[in-house]
Amino acid sequence: MPEFRQDIITGNWVIVAKERARRPEDFSEPEKPHKEHFRENCPFCVGNEGQTPPEVYAVRRDGSQPNQPGWKVRAVPNKFPALTSNGQVSTGDIGIYRTMSGVGAHEVILETPDHDRSPAELTQQELEDVMATYRHRHHALLEDERIKYVSIFRNHGRSAGASLEHPHSQIIATPIVPPLIQDSISAAKNYHSRTGKCVYCHMLEEERKAGVRVVYSNPGFVVYEPFASRTPFETCIMPLRHSPSFGEISDQEIEYLADALGLTMRKIADGLNDPSYNYMIRTAPIDDEYEGSEYLHWHLRILPKLAIAAGFEMGTGIYINTATPEDTAKFLRNI
Amino acid sequence: MPEFRQDIITGNWVIVAKERARRPEDFSEPEKPHKEHFRENCPFCVGNEGQTPPEVYAVRRDGSQPNQPGWKVRAVPNKFPALTSNGQVSTGDIGIYRTMSGVGAHEVILETPDHDRSPAELTQQELEDVMATYRHRHHALLEDERIKYVSIFRNHGRSAGASLEHPHSQIIATPIVPPLIQDSISAAKNYHSRTGKCVYCHMLEEERKAGVRVVYSNPGFVVYEPFASRTPFETCIMPLRHSPSFGEISDQEIEYLADALGLTMRKIADGLNDPSYNYMIRTAPIDDEYEGSEYLHWHLRILPKLAIAAGFEMGTGIYINTATPEDTAKFLRNI
Repeated sequence: MPEFRQDIITGNWVIVAKERARRPEDFSEPEKPHKEHFRENCPFCVGNEGQTPPEVYAVRRDGSQPNQPGWKVRAVPNKFPALTSNGQVSTGDIGIYRTMSGVGAHEVILETPDHDRSPAELTQQELEDVMATYRHRHHALLEDERIKYVSIFRNHGRSAGASLEHPHSQIIATPIVPPLIQDSISAAKNYHSRTGKCVYCHMLEEERKAGVRVVYSNPGFVVYEPFASRTPFETCIMPLRHSPSFGEISDQEIEYLADALGLTMRKIADGLNDPSYNYMIRTAPIDDEYEGSEYLHWHLRILPKLAIAAGFEMGTGIYINTATPEDTAKFLRNI
Repeated sequence: MPEFRQDIITGNWVIVAKERARRPEDFSEPEKPHKEHFRENCPFCVGNEGQTPPEVYAVRRDGSQPNQPGWKVRAVPNKFPALTSNGQVSTGDIGIYRTMSGVGAHEVILETPDHDRSPAELTQQELEDVMATYRHRHHALLEDERIKYVSIFRNHGRSAGASLEHPHSQIIATPIVPPLIQDSISAAKNYHSRTGKCVYCHMLEEERKAGVRVVYSNPGFVVYEPFASRTPFETCIMPLRHSPSFGEISDQEIEYLADALGLTMRKIADGLNDPSYNYMIRTAPIDDEYEGSEYLHWHLRILPKLAIAAGFEMGTGIYINTATPEDTAKFLRNI
């Protein structure tokens, strides 16, 4: 019989349809064509630094100059931003509807000079540099008093929304706390008042005890498939240390995160033949000082694009997952 | 400058990124191959009635027999249901997590005997038969006391999640009111207590006055592009008569709905070269007698698959829409 599973944070339900289940290996993608290390018309490739707006941060080889070759990781404003950095936050009305000026920030993190590399092929050092760049931009963007939330995410592959091939992550900083984040905060707060526990710490404890959904762990992080996963191979990378904001990640934790994320991406790429996926960092709004320090717990979530959210999902918010997180965790553990 | 727009029901925000905007005609799909009227191995084709579970309802030519050729529209249980019809609703716990038995119903509505037809090519009479079948199944499923909500939806095209080509809609009936529906209900209730108005009636009034987002109207329905559309060409078909439940639709309104839906699907198919889309009916839980009769207002929503919900959308619930609803409404009006 299929089973409803409730997300402990959001209260949403997922249908795990075992009768429709596919084996984990059935999600594997077809072969992809070979790619190139450099592409002349790629604005993110070495030598084309002038094709992006001037960089706001970079990890560079000693002696190299800003906006010149020699970078390892490079952060630049998005040339076609979803939100603009100029102007004040102002609200307005159009008839009965509300609007707000589209100010904020939209940056691109170039993860490697190599056009050809998939995120699973980044080295431990490169991933550490990328994570450290995330941390730098997180702090820098929150210094702008208009900014309430920093969303760091990665779209890998065309069907996950990546329009440029060159390995890159994105950051969008918004003048509002997104409603989805606000809802998670309320839910975590309720859980804390009810039980005295951080729901994420409680989940970690439970997952480590049960073991069946755990993929990997190191001294800083646990990688596991959430109990109410919405799609096959949904994966959570959760810091062991209770900490509301990604901005508080230590240098040592950056090493552990790079290890956990790198290994997970390699397992997904090897096991499923490099599928498209998105990952995103869920963190507290407005840095360390946010009041939710007792009940919020930042984490990273990977969502492979192996299923389509169709009419039922869009109409009800209930996802039908055709693989169990216990099966996909086992599959990933064994790679 | 980009603009945030707030959804008046959910409170969610959308970014209308005019700087990234594409012209409406840029969303047009590439040419598709020719299809066939009959396919021997299609379980929904005429002559293959034995390949589906026995029908639960059908519109048939006089004298034809159940589960034999002669049907015009046919409702059958899904052979691989997401929820099963046997068993009681029972909840359980796995560690700190909640589960519930996956009972409910999952039906398929075969919209025409013709394998080849897209929903935009259905005749007025066929669409009326399909809508009347929806109404019949809505009532029949709600007679089951385990059922709390009936979700009627259509996936058109592979990228919208349609796994079988033959024109069909689906119905999933759940033993819970989906959280997304519950949230809309709470929001509509709040709006009603605050203003004394049904938010949907108020929106209709506003949209008809403004006109810029209206695509079409007839004596029963208004077709318009919502102010805070999440994706290009999101389209709402709203009944003029205040009515919480789709189950209350009259025969006359079925004619008007078939007209409005048929015309809208033809405009989308002609203007954008038959893109994939989902449509879904949003209705009150538990039929007519539901307490929300003052503030709920059923409607149908069409969501073309012309954009990808990527890391930012999944991480924050905020959508970036690269076309304005005013532009897409104008484009559709002129077809």
